[in-house]
Amino acid sequence: MRVDGRLPDQIRQVTIERHYIKHAEGSVLITVGDTKVICTATIEDKVPPFLRNTGTGWITAEYSMLPRATQQRNQREATKGKLGGRTMEIQRLIGRALRSVVHLPTLGERTIWVDCDVIQADGGTRTASITGSFVALVDALHTLIERGTLEKMPLTDFLAAVSVGVVNEVPVLDLCYEEDSSAKVDMNVVMTGSGKFVEVQGTGEESPFTAEELQNLLFLAQKGIGQLIRTQKDVLGRVGEYVGKI
Amino acid sequence: MRVDGRLPDQIRQVTIERHYIKHAEGSVLITVGDTKVICTATIEDKVPPFLRNTGTGWITAEYSMLPRATQQRNQREATKGKLGGRTMEIQRLIGRALRSVVHLPTLGERTIWVDCDVIQADGGTRTASITGSFVALVDALHTLIERGTLEKMPLTDFLAAVSVGVVNEVPVLDLCYEEDSSAKVDMNVVMTGSGKFVEVQGTGEESPFTAEELQNLLFLAQKGIGQLIRTQKDVLGRVGEYVGKI
Amino acid sequence: MRVDGRLPDQIRQVTIERHYIKHAEGSVLITVGDTKVICTATIEDKVPPFLRNTGTGWITAEYSMLPRATQQRNQREATKGKLGGRTMEIQRLIGRALRSVVHLPTLGERTIWVDCDVIQADGGTRTASITGSFVALVDALHTLIERGTLEKMPLTDFLAAVSVGVVNEVPVLDLCYEEDSSAKVDMNVVMTGSGKFVEVQGTGEESPFTAEELQNLLFLAQKGIGQLIRTQKDVLGRVGEYVGKI
Amino acid sequence: MRVDGRLPDQIRQVTIERHYIKHAEGSVLITVGDTKVICTATIEDKVPPFLRNTGTGWITAEYSMLPRATQQRNQREATKGKLGGRTMEIQRLIGRALRSVVHLPTLGERTIWVDCDVIQADGGTRTASITGSFVALVDALHTLIERGTLEKMPLTDFLAAVSVGVVNEVPVLDLCYEEDSSAKVDMNVVMTGSGKFVEVQGTGEESPFTAEELQNLLFLAQKGIGQLIRTQKDVLGRVGEYVGKI
Amino acid sequence: MRVDGRLPDQIRQVTIERHYIKHAEGSVLITVGDTKVICTATIEDKVPPFLRNTGTGWITAEYSMLPRATQQRNQREATKGKLGGRTMEIQRLIGRALRSVVHLPTLGERTIWVDCDVIQADGGTRTASITGSFVALVDALHTLIERGTLEKMPLTDFLAAVSVGVVNEVPVLDLCYEEDSSAKVDMNVVMTGSGKFVEVQGTGEESPFTAEELQNLLFLAQKGIGQLIRTQKDVLGRVGEYVGKI
Amino acid sequence: MRVDGRLPDQIRQVTIERHYIKHAEGSVLITVGDTKVICTATIEDKVPPFLRNTGTGWITAEYSMLPRATQQRNQREATKGKLGGRTMEIQRLIGRALRSVVHLPTLGERTIWVDCDVIQADGGTRTASITGSFVALVDALHTLIERGTLEKMPLTDFLAAVSVGVVNEVPVLDLCYEEDSSAKVDMNVVMTGSGKFVEVQGTGEESPFTAEELQNLLFLAQKGIGQLIRTQKDVLGRVGEYVGKI
Repeated sequence: MRVDGRLPDQIRQVTIERHYIKHAEGSVLITVGDTKVICTATIEDKVPPFLRNTGTGWITAEYSMLPRATQQRNQREATKGKLGGRTMEIQRLIGRALRSVVHLPTLGERTIWVDCDVIQADGGTRTASITGSFVALVDALHTLIERGTLEKMPLTDFLAAVSVGVVNEVPVLDLCYEEDSSAKVDMNVVMTGSGKFVEVQGTGEESPFTAEELQNLLFLAQKGIGQLIRTQKDVLGRVGEYVGKI
Repeated sequence: MRVDGRLPDQIRQVTIERHYIKHAEGSVLITVGDTKVICTATIEDKVPPFLRNTGTGWITAEYSMLPRATQQRNQREATKGKLGGRTMEIQRLIGRALRSVVHLPTLGERTIWVDCDVIQADGGTRTASITGSFVALVDALHTLIERGTLEKMPLTDFLAAVSVGVVNEVPVLDLCYEEDSSAKVDMNVVMTGSGKFVEVQGTGEESPFTAEELQNLLFLAQKGIGQLIRTQKDVLGRVGEYVGKI
Repeated sequence: MRVDGRLPDQIRQVTIERHYIKHAEGSVLITVGDTKVICTATIEDKVPPFLRNTGTGWITAEYSMLPRATQQRNQREATKGKLGGRTMEIQRLIGRALRSVVHLPTLGERTIWVDCDVIQADGGTRTASITGSFVALVDALHTLIERGTLEKMPLTDFLAAVSVGVVNEVPVLDLCYEEDSSAKVDMNVVMTGSGKFVEVQGTGEESPFTAEELQNLLFLAQKGIGQLIRTQKDVLGRVGEYVGKI
Repeated sequence: MRVDGRLPDQIRQVTIERHYIKHAEGSVLITVGDTKVICTATIEDKVPPFLRNTGTGWITAEYSMLPRATQQRNQREATKGKLGGRTMEIQRLIGRALRSVVHLPTLGERTIWVDCDVIQADGGTRTASITGSFVALVDALHTLIERGTLEKMPLTDFLAAVSVGVVNEVPVLDLCYEEDSSAKVDMNVVMTGSGKFVEVQGTGEESPFTAEELQNLLFLAQKGIGQLIRTQKDVLGRVGEYVGKI
Repeated sequence: MRVDGRLPDQIRQVTIERHYIKHAEGSVLITVGDTKVICTATIEDKVPPFLRNTGTGWITAEYSMLPRATQQRNQREATKGKLGGRTMEIQRLIGRALRSVVHLPTLGERTIWVDCDVIQADGGTRTASITGSFVALVDALHTLIERGTLEKMPLTDFLAAVSVGVVNEVPVLDLCYEEDSSAKVDMNVVMTGSGKFVEVQGTGEESPFTAEELQNLLFLAQKGIGQLIRTQKDVLGRVGEYVGKI
Repeated sequence: MRVDGRLPDQIRQVTIERHYIKHAEGSVLITVGDTKVICTATIEDKVPPFLRNTGTGWITAEYSMLPRATQQRNQREATKGKLGGRTMEIQRLIGRALRSVVHLPTLGERTIWVDCDVIQADGGTRTASITGSFVALVDALHTLIERGTLEKMPLTDFLAAVSVGVVNEVPVLDLCYEEDSSAKVDMNVVMTGSGKFVEVQGTGEESPFTAEELQNLLFLAQKGIGQLIRTQKDVLGRVGEYVGKI
């Protein structure tokens, strides 16, 4: 029995509220249990120097937590004057994951800035950020189509992420903060709608793990991601049907 | 007639949702028209060096905007590696304003960190931050009283803030972003529940103003702040009755 | 009776020495009592990005104190690696105040950098900086006229600033450091030669103030600024006559 | 056939030269093909704040490349004034990986600083850093035992790392730079001497991968790491026998 | 004939005005031709960590130029967020030079902060800083003696500095900016009252120099420093007699 | 007798290994006793802004030490976020020294980046950096000639550097770390193949020195540099014959 009464293979309740910030081309509030993240997607009509005059676009992501998103207040990185290693690692992961399902030449020479701001944290903020910002990205791209700027949706597939881990010797799906703190193995998995892996990041700092444990965890992740993608499809409705038509 | 149909002396609709972030001792979401700010108050059991062993506490504030709170995306200050002048000015103002109604020796040797994070901006973010964070502060201090840590509420009075300005030659109350952009005179006013001024910051960069214009603006501000304080009292209910009993 | 024997409505002795730094287009040493500030105005033939190709110029200001301008040595901001909030606030104020009397299209696409460096501090450094740098600005602009670069003086009016405050329950004009430290209300006022307000920044952190107190302080400020502008006119002589002829 | 003539499951030639820097408690030069990394281990008799008075030690790692370790010169991070995201990610990985085989309470209240400086880069610098710094760590800890400071070796197992990837549709082991640039899937794997996983970091930014591909890559990694650990044992000789006796 | 009519072995006019800043324990305005530097000496009752509990004091120096001390305005290092190499080099030189004539154990566990701020620059700012700050240092130490804090003056000798160089093939003394810009060899020399060298820094970036040229330059420097030390003795009067009595 | 058994006028054993890093246009490992420095020279086809469209090239140098090059580990400057004063001073010296023997117009509009990374330090790292990077520079320029990019070698002369100092009252040549720590006078000298001085930097912080001592030290330096230049010629062989043919 898990700390919040869930079964080992059960994800937390997920809601995704679209059009959350009125100024952004795409924006959602995703809640996964008590974890809440605002994800926005902003379109900019230029690309980083290395892509200029290539006809190819770019997706880049930034991640931050409000100082009191956590149980103890964290000092702001803006006040410290630099980003921490954890933040950099997470925003690199989000950007890489999203790019894996975007056909960048179809996007054309524009950058999409994805901002993930954690309002309240209870474990799984990086995976919720990926799952939520995929929906914000769909909305932002759909805006471009509606404006006639883009002819077709440059997304090749759906994309979502979940954490898995070994807690009290049991492989479990979608860890809350309390579970995460005591997990011996901790893994973040990003997958596409067609069931392929985009990122697998497993860490056994506390205790190395076997090939069999790895299999069990990947199996759980696959199950959870399937459910998350169903939620994305539900909230996107007809707009979601553009995805993968490329 | 104003851009959103209000009368010159009419404030926008205000709501204050308490207990918005589960981890914080005090937290609200304040919405003033389309401006939305999350304000949290965090209690820390130590004080800055200059107050050690004085038996006196401190209130400090930090302010930030999500990158896409505004019409154009703003680069994060954490990414730039430093706080801008506007941010510093605003967080100094919030801290100073709140301290004016806190009896710091009654607070004792603890610091209250007030964090104001603008989720969506449509003018008046600094004044909404003050009005909202006063409520978060009351809740955080009330938590200390309930825990038995504090004997009485160290707040001497209520506190709220509003902007006023001269738009199209007419003095108006509570400017939205569009009005703010075209205002000739722009003023932020912070007042107490008993109608005294805590801060008056008026700027006529576009056009210097007369003593009479100043009077009219202060009169409008007084009216608006009265309404804001009534809203604070409504949402605080019985907890608000502790304020000023010192 | 005030700490230095002045009457409540009496300003300190003011001198403004023009042409203080040989390299600068305009430069003064202003002394207000024991406060001494070097103000220089430098002309640069380009504008910030947001003004390019608009035909419009810009005025920007920077402010600093020598480490030992004060009773206790302050660490240099260059050594700390960043500007403090107080510095940013002051330099934003100086720039905004000066711009209020400059007709920027007449200035044309050039930037004037105003540098205020406090050599010795005894209260009122920001207001002395504004009063002094206005004179440096006149000299720098006059240089442009003499060179034939500028046809007419882009200054619409004179400009000066003074502090006022409530010390020992008495409203007083032009506070020295000792008074400033014990003031209950502290206000900086910037006004034009024609008696209009450009900035009013009043703070009652120690003790909120009434509308009546505010009136008294503004009245004192008006008197002091009148005297400062007379001093500016005296030292500028015939060059001062160009001001306001636009 | 691979670009340098190797078979898909063949690692590059590896040499580990111990005692490379005379001042360090442990130091090696590891060469893996044309990749060369100096790894040093420095013992410091204090721990980070969060471990004080816990009797427990800490391992931390830093990673850097000489500017001309690569084909194009890279700007120094010291000159830029900040560490890049890639550097942070790598040094967090190295530290985490090494800590997984150290029994920190046996180490006692001391920190071991592991420095990995890439002299010449040709792919796989992070995995070479882990494999090399494990040997430097053994030497540094052995120094403590010889000095009588430490009673027994706090290492629970051997540790090495290797990269694997899918290049031209073929899963290959130990990618050189040219292969790495064109790999569709890229994975870094860290394992212990007893064949358990410590880190699995697989990325399919270019092309998501299947569960089967993942299996094949992990299988290759396991083979490569076995060989690397045999090399570690060879160069360590009798000193290596202390490892795992805890 | 030199650009300003001086003979090759003639220094510019030098004045040293003591007690220039009222707050500092020692302070002077030194003018050497058109070069003007404010030098202050501040006493602090603690030492850097490496000297704690050694009974030994420390002298440290900081150097800066006002932005418009030069013909072209220089960006402030505080605005850039870091000190440039030239500034670091100069402040290290000033500190090292002053320490060479201070008996640090006699000073006791206190630090003297020497601040050199260039108000107007016309060549030789680093040497003027050393010559001027020696006088400020004497005054600051004399203050300690008068307060009874220090029993005797910890200065072993007088100290001054001058620049020399080869301009138009002629070795000249005390270069102004115009000469410095066209000098083929440029040398800064610091010497004591008893005619010994403390620093010799000669650079022939434009054109390497012979041993004979070096001799001629050192001979000129010796002459100039003799005159500077006579000026120091004149302005210090009886206070200067304490120097060297150790 | 010196600490390592050398005579006062004897330099340590010097070796220079060319082509040390495969990617760089020029690269050496220089060892002077136990001091080891990797010097690389990188050619970039652009120049700093102040040289654009002048037809003239530039040489710039950067210097760093691995954290454990020294007896105590030094914190990385990349981690601190800024370069220290010592580093800046040294890299300015190396750049200036190398430029003194390069005819920059013959180099044409390109920059050569010289990187000196100290792998192991035992005194004299800055002089070894200059001596070693001269050889790397020759190789990089020779590469340009071989590619046909450059018609002739823009080097006017050979260049090397050595330290001298007064240790136990005896003037000695090429100080190791232990000698350097106890030297009363410390001097770094850079000279050309034709025996002219490029830089003379002597410091008597511990004890001022006489003109005679200075002569003795310069004489020793001259001898040492002669030997170093012979070593450079030996290792360069026929490539060295291009130097000075301009």
